[in-house]
Amino acid sequence: MNSFTRLFNPLGVAVVGATADTNRAGGQALYALTQYGYAGGVLPVNPNYDKLGKHRCYRGITEIDQPCDVAVVAVPAQHVPGVIEQCGNHGIPFAVVLGGGFREAGPEGVANEERMLAAARKGGVRLIGPNCLGFVNIHQRVYAGFGSITKPPDLKPGPVSAVIQSGGFGNSLVIQTAVAGVGFRYVVASGNESDIKAPELINAFVDDPETKVILAYLEGVADGRALMAAARRALAAGKPVIVLKSGNTQQGLRAAASHTANLTSSYDVFRAALKQCGVIEVRDTHEAADYAQCFATGRLARGRNVVVMGGSGGSAVAFSDAADEVGLKLTPLSTQTMAVLRENLPSVASLENPVDYAAGFTTDANAPRFVRAIDAILADPDVHQVGVLLATSTGRTMYNGVAGVAQALKKTDKPVMLFCSIPYDVAPEGFDLIAAEKIPMQPSPRRVAYAMATLADFSDALERRERLASPPHVTPRPLPSLPAGAATLDENQSKNVLRAFGVPVTNDQLLVPGAAVPANVMYPVAVKVVSRDIAHKSDIGGVRLNVPDATQLEKAVTEVLANAKRAAPQANIAGVLVSEMISDGLETIVGVVNDPCFGPVVAFGLGGILAETIRDVTYRVAPFDKVEAHAMVRDIRGAKLFDGVRGQPARDVDALAELLMAVSEMAWLLRDRLAEMDINPVLVRPAGKGVVAADALIVLRALR
Amino acid sequence: MNSFTRLFNPLGVAVVGATADTNRAGGQALYALTQYGYAGGVLPVNPNYDKLGKHRCYRGITEIDQPCDVAVVAVPAQHVPGVIEQCGNHGIPFAVVLGGGFREAGPEGVANEERMLAAARKGGVRLIGPNCLGFVNIHQRVYAGFGSITKPPDLKPGPVSAVIQSGGFGNSLVIQTAVAGVGFRYVVASGNESDIKAPELINAFVDDPETKVILAYLEGVADGRALMAAARRALAAGKPVIVLKSGNTQQGLRAAASHTANLTSSYDVFRAALKQCGVIEVRDTHEAADYAQCFATGRLARGRNVVVMGGSGGSAVAFSDAADEVGLKLTPLSTQTMAVLRENLPSVASLENPVDYAAGFTTDANAPRFVRAIDAILADPDVHQVGVLLATSTGRTMYNGVAGVAQALKKTDKPVMLFCSIPYDVAPEGFDLIAAEKIPMQPSPRRVAYAMATLADFSDALERRERLASPPHVTPRPLPSLPAGAATLDENQSKNVLRAFGVPVTNDQLLVPGAAVPANVMYPVAVKVVSRDIAHKSDIGGVRLNVPDATQLEKAVTEVLANAKRAAPQANIAGVLVSEMISDGLETIVGVVNDPCFGPVVAFGLGGILAETIRDVTYRVAPFDKVEAHAMVRDIRGAKLFDGVRGQPARDVDALAELLMAVSEMAWLLRDRLAEMDINPVLVRPAGKGVVAADALIVLRALR
Repeated sequence: MNSFTRLFNPLGVAVVGATADTNRAGGQALYALTQYGYAGGVLPVNPNYDKLGKHRCYRGITEIDQPCDVAVVAVPAQHVPGVIEQCGNHGIPFAVVLGGGFREAGPEGVANEERMLAAARKGGVRLIGPNCLGFVNIHQRVYAGFGSITKPPDLKPGPVSAVIQSGGFGNSLVIQTAVAGVGFRYVVASGNESDIKAPELINAFVDDPETKVILAYLEGVADGRALMAAARRALAAGKPVIVLKSGNTQQGLRAAASHTANLTSSYDVFRAALKQCGVIEVRDTHEAADYAQCFATGRLARGRNVVVMGGSGGSAVAFSDAADEVGLKLTPLSTQTMAVLRENLPSVASLENPVDYAAGFTTDANAPRFVRAIDAILADPDVHQVGVLLATSTGRTMYNGVAGVAQALKKTDKPVMLFCSIPYDVAPEGFDLIAAEKIPMQPSPRRVAYAMATLADFSDALERRERLASPPHVTPRPLPSLPAGAATLDENQSKNVLRAFGVPVTNDQLLVPGAAVPANVMYPVAVKVVSRDIAHKSDIGGVRLNVPDATQLEKAVTEVLANAKRAAPQANIAGVLVSEMISDGLETIVGVVNDPCFGPVVAFGLGGILAETIRDVTYRVAPFDKVEAHAMVRDIRGAKLFDGVRGQPARDVDALAELLMAVSEMAWLLRDRLAEMDINPVLVRPAGKGVVAADALIVLRALR
Repeated sequence: MNSFTRLFNPLGVAVVGATADTNRAGGQALYALTQYGYAGGVLPVNPNYDKLGKHRCYRGITEIDQPCDVAVVAVPAQHVPGVIEQCGNHGIPFAVVLGGGFREAGPEGVANEERMLAAARKGGVRLIGPNCLGFVNIHQRVYAGFGSITKPPDLKPGPVSAVIQSGGFGNSLVIQTAVAGVGFRYVVASGNESDIKAPELINAFVDDPETKVILAYLEGVADGRALMAAARRALAAGKPVIVLKSGNTQQGLRAAASHTANLTSSYDVFRAALKQCGVIEVRDTHEAADYAQCFATGRLARGRNVVVMGGSGGSAVAFSDAADEVGLKLTPLSTQTMAVLRENLPSVASLENPVDYAAGFTTDANAPRFVRAIDAILADPDVHQVGVLLATSTGRTMYNGVAGVAQALKKTDKPVMLFCSIPYDVAPEGFDLIAAEKIPMQPSPRRVAYAMATLADFSDALERRERLASPPHVTPRPLPSLPAGAATLDENQSKNVLRAFGVPVTNDQLLVPGAAVPANVMYPVAVKVVSRDIAHKSDIGGVRLNVPDATQLEKAVTEVLANAKRAAPQANIAGVLVSEMISDGLETIVGVVNDPCFGPVVAFGLGGILAETIRDVTYRVAPFDKVEAHAMVRDIRGAKLFDGVRGQPARDVDALAELLMAVSEMAWLLRDRLAEMDINPVLVRPAGKGVVAADALIVLRALR
């Protein structure tokens, strides 16, 4: 029993605004609750009726004299706050607000929403919606909603629970997953999410023992950290979370803003955050359907070594291409396995993986041979997953292939999936067996490969779950003193902050204007004007590099100050920085952005004009540990540069990972003040020689 | 009537090796020809029978006394050459060789294949196969084959003709396209393609007036230029060619080699070649099905301005994301169109594109309003394509949406496509209407967007068809004298070849060993040792840059010669090159490879270590014109660098395009001799200042 048990398993459901007219939301909700087998109390509320169908109709919520855990509210927006207040007074703990006219509908709607939320808080009522289709509990036949989620096709009970931020499209995702043979438990269309939000629902699904797989259609998440926390709990519980996210591009964001008015952050950041918690992100509905089928079996892959067998060589070729793309290995079979194949498969068969037993092999007579072959392959300890490419097989040949897989599956816990390209009606017996045995089936070899890779990715996340499921703890420490309010720090101040968090910076000396050039200088040096008002100092002649000696240094100091004063007469100039020159570093850039949904996020990329042009950048939500920092370095397209290509030395990647981790901790500890930060460049020196921040810019915001 | 008319429309078909046993190929072929409605003569050949079913069985081919255009050959490989010889003697112009045991089956198979081909050539018999499923002509019910292409599901007649290099997977592609509602004309499983190859079949489809769309599953193409020529003819005829190519990666190539033993070239080159001819390349079967649906309607998109309308806001958001990815513009509607929408759509509707009329709008009562709305949108001159996002609509609402689109389509030639996410059985009337009216339908908004983009891409190719359909003519010219046989040219020789083809190179002077340093030098200069035996001259101290004056030049010449002699005592040293220094150039690389399938191909990419690490390279089959050369420059990820980012000047892209075009012509004219060429770097100077090849290396092969 968790906090949402009464929502999903209500003893009674009121329909406020119930009617017999099924063109209206209140009519559809009443119809769905009465016609689909819900065993609890159905409690229509409408002052205009005494009875609706066989049910007594209550004139108001306060009249309800039976157990009632959920009120489905189908009245105009302006009446909703009053209804919620009555729910609170009457002890109804949950309301599902179907209609629109709230935040998404202008200032009046915003006011409605605020009044509704105030009533909910006061009365202890938790809300689904508004502007939503409601929810269903397939196992208990609770259809607390209207529209498409109460209409055919009827979902079969099963292990997948879904939260969908848009009814129409989210339910398209659910339906297509169901059509692929996957059963559902809870489907919640969460609409505006004024109160109960997607992360809280995901948490409820994690707590529900019958839910094994979590599916989410998201357009935006106000609290990205809450989503990450829910995803981490799911991973810790071994439940895969499949997310389809929309509203990611310029046109998509515009469409989303006018749709559910959800807060959105950069899609890059969103993807990075999901990846950090082992979430499976998909780009289209069919991918979700493909992967949900596999996860619904409960079978996990032990790794990326796969075997495919079938009678269609071309399918094996297409599979092999896709396998390369997603890092699956067509693993060689053991001599023992090969011996079994040789004994059982036809002489024309190609026994090497991919195993090609030639079309038409699985006749009734050969069926036992096929079973012995697939058994042997599945028993091979190096094999983690098997794909059976039935392709265009029909009739008994197809049925025997399916039946053989079904038999084999009873003797192994390894995943097996099928590729079939024919429609149902040319091989109904085979397809019925696939459905009965819940064998994952994809309509192309490529999709088999992608599903296998997704299973392997999830297993990989599970192996790392101890780390992934708990974000690193950052020991609080005294923060460096910072100017109050919004402010831009100059290079020297920025580097001082970095130093305070253990980020290595260049050896610098600040000369205030007029100060003498110091004696203890290791030449050559760089000379840079220091001013919080000059963002691009090299553009205005404020930088001199490779200054070789004291004479030149004196000259350089005079010049950069003069240039700065000429270019920016109003600028506050703190002095000049005399910095050591690092000549053996590879230029990289480390940045911090404070994302509206996810908070502090660290960006990392190669420096230089080309890297910036092609945006070779990766992101991680802060804080993160060193393992994640190493992954970040490997993420970028140009990562091979760190290995030392073309006669260049290998780089100190470990020190770079340390720096990234330190920056992530700093970003987290300063999250209330840091607006953005740019360390450009971070010079990555040859292995063993460390890294160093050669320039930095911190922008602070006022404490909120 | 074209050369393949008798193949595809035979008056009679012999089945050599016919039998009553439908487990055997000869039995399946006979069954398919007799049972599926073929009106021509069915002519079984088998010395063991007098009759098979109702048909007289001939003891040998020579006995056939009726018109016979095609022999389907289902006898063991060693007997095939004899059968083909008899076909020739008996005037049968085409044979379809079903069985394997040829090139793909080792040395004995190779010998069989050679004997078979010799017999075919001698007797004037053209061959489909061997090692194939045969072909079908759906309109004339000619099923000249066995296996899956003769089995359910039965294809409906329609405008798509297909060539498939693998029966099982290629036919999966055909079936899934058929399941999406697309009708077929010819399907040819071409197997080993010993004689008739995919390009020739594509040409036959181009010549067939009933074929409107061409589909191909390819694993390899021996003659890439022939494929390009066929694709160009198709484009000139306005027929889209959709290609799915497998065998592209390391594991895929390995699988393909053991499958059809087709010659393969680099996938990058293959993709570039297809793109150059306006071919639509897909990565998976469902994409082909999506696009074939659209092309089968014959409707062409005029551009990338699209409108989507529907009752599912989330679907519009998902569509908009995908639209951004593929460069579709959700174009604003005219005030006139908006007025019609305002009048006809509900007050809660969002009238801006994407148009959201709210779920459930298309009731019977509202159906005429929906039609007026979609009519107005389609009449808007700025709108090129329309998507109707029915999403989860069912029953009358769904039917009215479909019916409205069907009505609207009769008044416009613009493409309209649907997104439906529900299964057939919950809205059979609507789906039947979709099928009857052949309205393209995709199961996700993303796939609607991708299909729209593909239509727009094809229209774009059609607009350019005059150029795309005819490769540029290269005027023959006297070729520079080259050493006979395989040879590596040194930098000086390589640059001389470039000069001969009008490729700008640096101002160089060759000093033979011992020659005096010349007086007429514009300093600074570069000094480089010249030797065809030293590939990486800078690695061995064979290069000095920025040599400022005559004294230093003398010293540099001595040094690089000494270094070269020390590092490579056996090397043939032609002297040193004194070259002008270009300091304002952006480094790029231009290369030529001689692809085994496509011949000379030009590669272009940015120079520098990062660009090489991330492989930022694009390819074009040579020769190509300047428009294509410009497209090539824009292709690479870092193309923005040419616009002059971060204070750098814009680059002389026009001169770069000229150079690429000149290199492509040179690669073409020298195709019999050029093994490979590397111009590294090509320095791209600021706009107006040109480009210059600063180093080059040409490797020649012996004339074949």
